[in-house]
Amino acid sequence: MPAFAVSFDDIAAAATRLRGIAHRTPAITSATLDARTGARVFLKAENLQRMGAFKFRGAYNRLAQLDAGERARGVVAFSSGNHAQGVALAARLLGIAATIVMPSDAPAAKLAATRGYGAEIVLYERATMNRAEIASALVAERGATLVPPYDDPAIIAGAGTTALELIEDAGPLDVLIVCTGGGGLLSGCALAATALTPGIAVYGVEPVAGDDWVQSLARNERVTIPIPATIADGLQTQTPGELTFPIVRALCAGVVTVSDDELRLAMRFAFERLKLVIEPSGAAALAALLMERVDVRGKRVGVTISGGNVDAATFARLIA
Amino acid sequence: MPAFAVSFDDIAAAATRLRGIAHRTPAITSATLDARTGARVFLKAENLQRMGAFKFRGAYNRLAQLDAGERARGVVAFSSGNHAQGVALAARLLGIAATIVMPSDAPAAKLAATRGYGAEIVLYERATMNRAEIASALVAERGATLVPPYDDPAIIAGAGTTALELIEDAGPLDVLIVCTGGGGLLSGCALAATALTPGIAVYGVEPVAGDDWVQSLARNERVTIPIPATIADGLQTQTPGELTFPIVRALCAGVVTVSDDELRLAMRFAFERLKLVIEPSGAAALAALLMERVDVRGKRVGVTISGGNVDAATFARLIA
Repeated sequence: MPAFAVSFDDIAAAATRLRGIAHRTPAITSATLDARTGARVFLKAENLQRMGAFKFRGAYNRLAQLDAGERARGVVAFSSGNHAQGVALAARLLGIAATIVMPSDAPAAKLAATRGYGAEIVLYERATMNRAEIASALVAERGATLVPPYDDPAIIAGAGTTALELIEDAGPLDVLIVCTGGGGLLSGCALAATALTPGIAVYGVEPVAGDDWVQSLARNERVTIPIPATIADGLQTQTPGELTFPIVRALCAGVVTVSDDELRLAMRFAFERLKLVIEPSGAAALAALLMERVDVRGKRVGVTISGGNVDAATFARLIA
Repeated sequence: MPAFAVSFDDIAAAATRLRGIAHRTPAITSATLDARTGARVFLKAENLQRMGAFKFRGAYNRLAQLDAGERARGVVAFSSGNHAQGVALAARLLGIAATIVMPSDAPAAKLAATRGYGAEIVLYERATMNRAEIASALVAERGATLVPPYDDPAIIAGAGTTALELIEDAGPLDVLIVCTGGGGLLSGCALAATALTPGIAVYGVEPVAGDDWVQSLARNERVTIPIPATIADGLQTQTPGELTFPIVRALCAGVVTVSDDELRLAMRFAFERLKLVIEPSGAAALAALLMERVDVRGKRVGVTISGGNVDAATFARLIA
């Protein structure tokens, strides 16, 4: 096996760090879903994770490995979504000051949640300012540590504990379906799943409007696309990660796509039949399962539900 | 202890019958909820139960004890809600024909779900016909067994497995808060909880508009009230059950009430912070917790979330 930025041992170590800190989210089963798909399906409900998404796992795993000096100088992240809340919560739990760079037009609920976890928020104008530059300036000025959303070994290893737990709880799987934006969750889960159950077919799922993974895998190099227009706000990345791409390329069976309508269908299914609140991005893997993008008949299938952070008005509109 | 219609052994036997059939629903924790209440809270998420509510437990436990002749003649139930779906699903799993008497104005989604589980549906006009009489006629005509929604030892014992599992998974509790309509869940949980952890304070919760339990406990006899006007459609019973009342009177610390606005608040909290879909009735115990109707500070507290069957339009309106 080629040497990746992350090993299975890193994921096992992350699991130890997260024990008693992160929720061990349930592996949910549904006879209705099994009947509909002809498979035995286990849903890893990371919408029930602390701060409502798997992002907490990577953020905590990263911050827990900072030394005393680094902790004292604080952390910086830029994100308008779940990564912001993950870093903010992990920082609070570890007694580290966190500064989150967010666009001034971020949803009020996300600003409030991030502030609620005790983070300092620095707002920027999306049209005229570059968030990476603002974050870099903060890092330079304060000596703070920048916490990237996915292209970081500790973030990937933390995310990989999602699949580790699922396979421990559900037993061996034939197929694992994981949503992918930057690829942190997908690459981490692929590392964990293929180490635990060699031969497992791991699939990524991305919005059809933002198929940078599909294009990149087809061309065997990282392709950059315009910012995709999709309701899956957590999957609007423009290119696979530098660290995540080689892992996915080597270990995954493929990446498939779903449309916004299919994401809505999966959210409605989760509402009606599973009684779970899933955000659009978090429904991508379930949508791929329901739309039969992956051959699962007669197989044992793991599906990640990556998050549930969606405001009431948006949710009401999408499940209507 | 006085002799009740149900014993702890009945609940333990029900748990054995339900093993591998009912979902062992998770005991969900939330740091946000703990911080807000000053307690250590464990939510028994029966909205994640098969058919979306705890009602499956009692229905299956009742039907599984029918003999071959009774099974061959089928079962009858009257209900416009979760009991109908519970009986329909349990009957299907056991290969028993089920007939459900439902009002002609029942929500299309509930009719479809009940039909989807393979039950025959007999519709009646709510204004002019008596559902109990219709059901009795079916029972007489077919020799079928009537399955009551709560006032039945096997139904109560099945419901009691909810508390049994919660205490097994969460550990000993100081307080248990349970919603109550007819009292099947409350009496069963009170039996299980007080047997496992003597000294536990078990509270019932009902809508303030339908406080038949509060009135009945105050007068020490079963009081009948008009059909209450509340969004908690599963808690619109008019009087405590004949079997459930003496159990609750003897074993519970009290019954408290919540308003419809407080139910909405709990549903919104569950949506925003827990990512769970809860129906109005299912949010009663959580509402009582959030509104501090019960003294929980510094304690280990169990809270039942009894169901999640609510249609999209209603849910959207209630969480708005």
